[in-house]
Amino acid sequence: MTNIGIIGIGCIGSSLARDVKTLNLGEVYLCDRNTDYLSRAQELDLGHYYFRNVKDLAQESDIIIVSVPVIYIADVILEASKYAKEGAIITDVGSVKCSIIERVEDQLPRHVTYIPGHPITAYTVGNGPDAGRERAFDGKVYALTPLEDTPLEALEVLSNILQQIGANIAIMEPERHDICLGFTSHLPHLIAFSMMNSSAKLTSQLHEDVTKYAGGSFQDLTRVAGSDAQMWQGIFSENKDNLIELCDLFMSELSTLREMVKAEDKKGLEEFIKQARNVRLKAYNN
Amino acid sequence: MTNIGIIGIGCIGSSLARDVKTLNLGEVYLCDRNTDYLSRAQELDLGHYYFRNVKDLAQESDIIIVSVPVIYIADVILEASKYAKEGAIITDVGSVKCSIIERVEDQLPRHVTYIPGHPITAYTVGNGPDAGRERAFDGKVYALTPLEDTPLEALEVLSNILQQIGANIAIMEPERHDICLGFTSHLPHLIAFSMMNSSAKLTSQLHEDVTKYAGGSFQDLTRVAGSDAQMWQGIFSENKDNLIELCDLFMSELSTLREMVKAEDKKGLEEFIKQARNVRLKAYNN
Repeated sequence: MTNIGIIGIGCIGSSLARDVKTLNLGEVYLCDRNTDYLSRAQELDLGHYYFRNVKDLAQESDIIIVSVPVIYIADVILEASKYAKEGAIITDVGSVKCSIIERVEDQLPRHVTYIPGHPITAYTVGNGPDAGRERAFDGKVYALTPLEDTPLEALEVLSNILQQIGANIAIMEPERHDICLGFTSHLPHLIAFSMMNSSAKLTSQLHEDVTKYAGGSFQDLTRVAGSDAQMWQGIFSENKDNLIELCDLFMSELSTLREMVKAEDKKGLEEFIKQARNVRLKAYNN
Repeated sequence: MTNIGIIGIGCIGSSLARDVKTLNLGEVYLCDRNTDYLSRAQELDLGHYYFRNVKDLAQESDIIIVSVPVIYIADVILEASKYAKEGAIITDVGSVKCSIIERVEDQLPRHVTYIPGHPITAYTVGNGPDAGRERAFDGKVYALTPLEDTPLEALEVLSNILQQIGANIAIMEPERHDICLGFTSHLPHLIAFSMMNSSAKLTSQLHEDVTKYAGGSFQDLTRVAGSDAQMWQGIFSENKDNLIELCDLFMSELSTLREMVKAEDKKGLEEFIKQARNVRLKAYNN
């Protein structure tokens, strides 16, 4: 039986633990430096064995999944790799890939294989073991961004586990992953936070109106503004260069549209909106 | 029995017709210059009588609801008012109020009362009689922005009808309505269109990735990007001054955040995100 060690029992880690255990894909070893999370995971019966530190878990695991906040991932990978078994596979679930790879690739011992990962479209929200759920990855895109020297067998072993929990594996280059996610996730978060803080700068009467009378478009746009501050500060910093470039692209489009509104350029406005509409309809059929 | 004339059998007009007829709140008179819409409404049995022109409908109606695209509303109100009965109430459903009021208030005959309206949070999408549905306004905020000389009795008559279809009436000043909606609806549309057109400016490989691998935040943010171009060109133009001001506020917040990302100002980023998170949680509890 494969021993699967999960470090970090938050929303993603605990969701993975649930599926691996329920589907009987391996022995589930859990570890979290937050002792409340660890004992809560035990109460919820999410794993088979619980560890206080990375070393003990790493020594026992065939596959190690690092599901801690992005800014800690590289350090935890390196810590785990020191104690990992011969042939162990280490993966992570971070929203940014290049900065982690840069920090670990020259320091990993040769007897372990690191395969960067990210469950892209699994909708995960909240903190701790209670935030997770079963089948969170079912039918969702799960990116793996292997390094140049990643052995194919290791990639197959990890993919196989993830496919059994229902994930659709997408193999992509780390650089492509980071630009793509910068645009589809990190930039929308920048926008949502900015929109929310704009509303706080309105007069107090208007600020009250805004939350009272907001329709679907505002609520949808700002839905992710309730996300964790420390986590998102980390993601923004780790994907800084892509994010700045993408933010500038967006602001340039918005400025173009703003100028058309100001100039009452009806033809320009209609063309701009029609193009947006076409791109949206082509992508989602609605 | 009250005769309720609805001019424009689109998504909102046809939803109103459905409720008024089903709940037996009055005789439903329908009119649309699009003859396909008119015959489709007849097929769907949405009204009691169907008219080819505004004049014939106006002569028969006690309450006239103008539910045509924003840019045509003022003209249709003036046209209808010429033929309206003594004591008739005219209302509209436009997303912008001040520009319409400015255009009609000095030209309305004294024997009719115009009460500007807007179903704010009814989620309406699509065109024509098929896009409407029953109970679209049930539990939703419906703004009425009466003029200074609006008689209270007329306001009560109109409110009464709308309350019977389940609407929560919010009485507000037209100026307040337009700033509020500029922020909660028109600005989010600007952002969604700009985001969609930014994605079209990415490399073709990346553009494909974006739609393939986009998670919830991107899909939510761009949901309204499939909206009608002519309609939104009109709304943007009619609420131009508010929209430019609100867009500048948003861009200034986004620029502040962008600078913090660039400078890797971790403390600033966390504070910015925490504030956004607090505003969001206070407003929606999630």
